[in-house]
Amino acid sequence: MTGGRSAGDPQPYFDRHVFVCTNRRAEGHPRGCCAEKKSEPLRAYLKARVGEAEVGRVRVNASGCLDRCELGPVLVIYPEGIWYTYRTAEDLDEIIQTHLVEGGRVARLMLSPEDGPKPPPAG
Amino acid sequence: MTGGRSAGDPQPYFDRHVFVCTNRRAEGHPRGCCAEKKSEPLRAYLKARVGEAEVGRVRVNASGCLDRCELGPVLVIYPEGIWYTYRTAEDLDEIIQTHLVEGGRVARLMLSPEDGPKPPPAG
Repeated sequence: MTGGRSAGDPQPYFDRHVFVCTNRRAEGHPRGCCAEKKSEPLRAYLKARVGEAEVGRVRVNASGCLDRCELGPVLVIYPEGIWYTYRTAEDLDEIIQTHLVEGGRVARLMLSPEDGPKPPPAG
Repeated sequence: MTGGRSAGDPQPYFDRHVFVCTNRRAEGHPRGCCAEKKSEPLRAYLKARVGEAEVGRVRVNASGCLDRCELGPVLVIYPEGIWYTYRTAEDLDEIIQTHLVEGGRVARLMLSPEDGPKPPPAG
């Protein structure tokens, strides 16, 4: 059931595809939302900086709710499926340099499945 | 520069993560947009059907513009990075069964980089 590339698959269209949750919920919702934590302007900052960086073909997309609201704002980078929480432009600068340019990981911001919430049961 | 998993990376949070472009542009824009080709109700259909299917932990997200508007409506499935164009609920049923359930590919709907538009130059 897990995803993965198969022999004969087309080459990837982007080297990396970053999805930044910009979902906004009504004020006071118990889960909160990424937009109330400034994900929209921070996504714009990330997109602009990535456009200037030596990172290969990377697209920075806005996305709907990624369902890890409590840890937000969150973003996920594919194909590696690495999730980050971030708060500031400096956090994003570090993700660009360490992850997108150097191919490393920003351990202090990276999320693991154990950070929650529990993923939905396998359908 | 290309993305990929590294030793020590956390387990993936979702088995597969589907991003469906629901971007809407002003009427008459030369590139068109996925929303004018019914991507919003079709995304809702896909999400509901995936929730009932035996596909593992799959999330169906809305996304902003995926920048392949001329081929739209489009969706992309990660981690494998496979892109599809689709028009109908029947197309989505085939993607669920063949790709998400069986791990195959729906060749008649799958996009390759050569289908365009040319990806942005490497930054």
